[in-house]
Amino acid sequence: MNNFQYKNPTKILFGKNQLENIVPEIPENSKVLMLYGGGSIKKNGVYEQVTKALSNFEVIEFGGIPANPEYAILIDALKIIKEKDITFLLAVGGGSVIDGTKFLSAAALFKGENPWNILAENIAVQKGMPFGTVLTLPATGSEMNSGAVITRKETKEKLVMGGPGLFPQFSILDPEVVKSIPQRQIANGLADAFTHVLEQYMTYPVGGFLQDRFAESILQTLIEIAPKIMSDTSDYEAASNFMWSCTMALNGLIQQGVPSDWAIHMIGHELTALYGIDHARTLAIITESHYTYNFEDKKEKLAQYATRVWNVTEGTTEEKAKAGITKTTAFFQSLGIKTKLSEYTDRYEGTAEIISKRFTDRGWKGLGEHGKITPSDVEKIVKMSY
Amino acid sequence: MNNFQYKNPTKILFGKNQLENIVPEIPENSKVLMLYGGGSIKKNGVYEQVTKALSNFEVIEFGGIPANPEYAILIDALKIIKEKDITFLLAVGGGSVIDGTKFLSAAALFKGENPWNILAENIAVQKGMPFGTVLTLPATGSEMNSGAVITRKETKEKLVMGGPGLFPQFSILDPEVVKSIPQRQIANGLADAFTHVLEQYMTYPVGGFLQDRFAESILQTLIEIAPKIMSDTSDYEAASNFMWSCTMALNGLIQQGVPSDWAIHMIGHELTALYGIDHARTLAIITESHYTYNFEDKKEKLAQYATRVWNVTEGTTEEKAKAGITKTTAFFQSLGIKTKLSEYTDRYEGTAEIISKRFTDRGWKGLGEHGKITPSDVEKIVKMSY
Repeated sequence: MNNFQYKNPTKILFGKNQLENIVPEIPENSKVLMLYGGGSIKKNGVYEQVTKALSNFEVIEFGGIPANPEYAILIDALKIIKEKDITFLLAVGGGSVIDGTKFLSAAALFKGENPWNILAENIAVQKGMPFGTVLTLPATGSEMNSGAVITRKETKEKLVMGGPGLFPQFSILDPEVVKSIPQRQIANGLADAFTHVLEQYMTYPVGGFLQDRFAESILQTLIEIAPKIMSDTSDYEAASNFMWSCTMALNGLIQQGVPSDWAIHMIGHELTALYGIDHARTLAIITESHYTYNFEDKKEKLAQYATRVWNVTEGTTEEKAKAGITKTTAFFQSLGIKTKLSEYTDRYEGTAEIISKRFTDRGWKGLGEHGKITPSDVEKIVKMSY
Repeated sequence: MNNFQYKNPTKILFGKNQLENIVPEIPENSKVLMLYGGGSIKKNGVYEQVTKALSNFEVIEFGGIPANPEYAILIDALKIIKEKDITFLLAVGGGSVIDGTKFLSAAALFKGENPWNILAENIAVQKGMPFGTVLTLPATGSEMNSGAVITRKETKEKLVMGGPGLFPQFSILDPEVVKSIPQRQIANGLADAFTHVLEQYMTYPVGGFLQDRFAESILQTLIEIAPKIMSDTSDYEAASNFMWSCTMALNGLIQQGVPSDWAIHMIGHELTALYGIDHARTLAIITESHYTYNFEDKKEKLAQYATRVWNVTEGTTEEKAKAGITKTTAFFQSLGIKTKLSEYTDRYEGTAEIISKRFTDRGWKGLGEHGKITPSDVEKIVKMSY
């Protein structure tokens, strides 16, 4: 097991009607900017619940944060924060709204000239404006971590940011929100959380026995509840395990003391930036090719995964490992998610070269748990995903 | 899954040489009281490492906190805190030293006349003097939770306390300390952590699928590393998983959203108070009787445990459940731990009645996940443990 340092101070309020407990979590006399997305919260009752719960505070609203939170829109929100002397941010939404709010938390206290530099220079944010979240879509885990991904249409970029100052003060997780989520989004959430775990698990063994088992626990739980929640979003038992699994998949716990990969995400982000493909679906496109291309490095963990998570008991290490890859693709497909790029766009030719060049242009650091995946490797992986 | 609220702000510094990172974790200009136990840290090098690392701070020492931290001794330390205007506490030791430090953290800021009332009146401590820990003995999980157990010889009492103000600011977990721990203490740590998980898991199903799997993960990991660490305490891989498993067993995570039992601990504490039997061993004495006596309430989870943790695949629910109990007792015995009270004391007759009466005298609340275990039930459970 590798050395690690871990602290996660986010307070979780989980379960039915937890919005009723929001008031003591926000500092008295806060001037609150409530941020949300495309307006689904106005259809499912969450908007009314939140505004009612916040009736003791001065609240200004900012809606319209899109999926893949867009820099230009966030800059509009940043102006409001400064003009209106906002002191507390409340994200009401899924990962995009929460990620956008994290950017604003950082940007509100940023001393530099250009807030884009928080992303471009990958600044570790030590202190942000305090914020809380009301989660409406289980998927990204952003409700209990300190990372965010921001998109800039102007340059077709999608960059990551984070830092110890960007944990939510609190997050309200009421699984009852799941029942009004469209099936497509449920599938995305399941695939996203599943891949988050894989990125922190499917590397090479370092004797993190407990971390491995925790990772496998989340995968097993997602597999167990996936058909239930896909067929009946009002199944509270499935919804609550779905929601808690998504949070635990990326709140930092399972990555402590073990290597992480994240190449699937790094490549997938480019597919979203280029073609607007749903984030989770880009992961499903890349996973099989990535694991097949890097089979030798990952086969031990792939075999362990096949055995423990998918009950594959027969065969050599290699055979089990291959079965693990096949099972993963089949899992994505069972959610109605297509796993080849050509199923999403006709313009797929040349994608591999474009992504490879982008990585090179941005200053190559080497992807994967060994940091050894080159632009040329990425090109091959993406081509295998066509 | 039940509703829950969860926050755990303790920062973990895990791994080799993490003591080197202690300075920024303690507020500048702190006046530190360093607390430790019987002096084993002076033999294993930890004392020198800590005092060297703290050379920038004004440090006063208080050694001699015994196993089952004794109220009268802690009151001596409390006097020093007040006389010397101590502002930060540093526990260097195992669960007893850390628990004692938590009492002092609470008592240092306690407004009442008599600090014993923190325990006697079961006051939820909202704010304590800040403290950190350097863990020297994996077992209790106290390094990442806000609870403590304090003993008072004068009255043969052992009472619990806690509250959100009693999380350590940080805890340093260096698995290299394990190599100098006597085998008896290793066995105790394994049994203690194992039972901590059981107390939060062996109740009845509430659809906490992820919590169940996390609990099973810790149990599986402890079972996997137990023979390794018992035979070779310098096995770093086993030691690190032992240490992290003990912390995760009782840092609050696995109990969120599911019922807890804790009857084994409540009864076990009385055996320590009466006979001075090691805490972990009292748990091993009570577990089988408790699960056998409350078999009907627990059989579903016992069967799940037998299947998932011990690979018992044959038989009815009842047969699997019984196998789960047998396997648990065998596990304790594999650690060299005796599982009957009569193996620890010749004076066991009458113990059941004494404990039952004590619970009654202290105001009966009902033990177990259903709160329905009566003094008469406790009497029977203890008798079955003779």
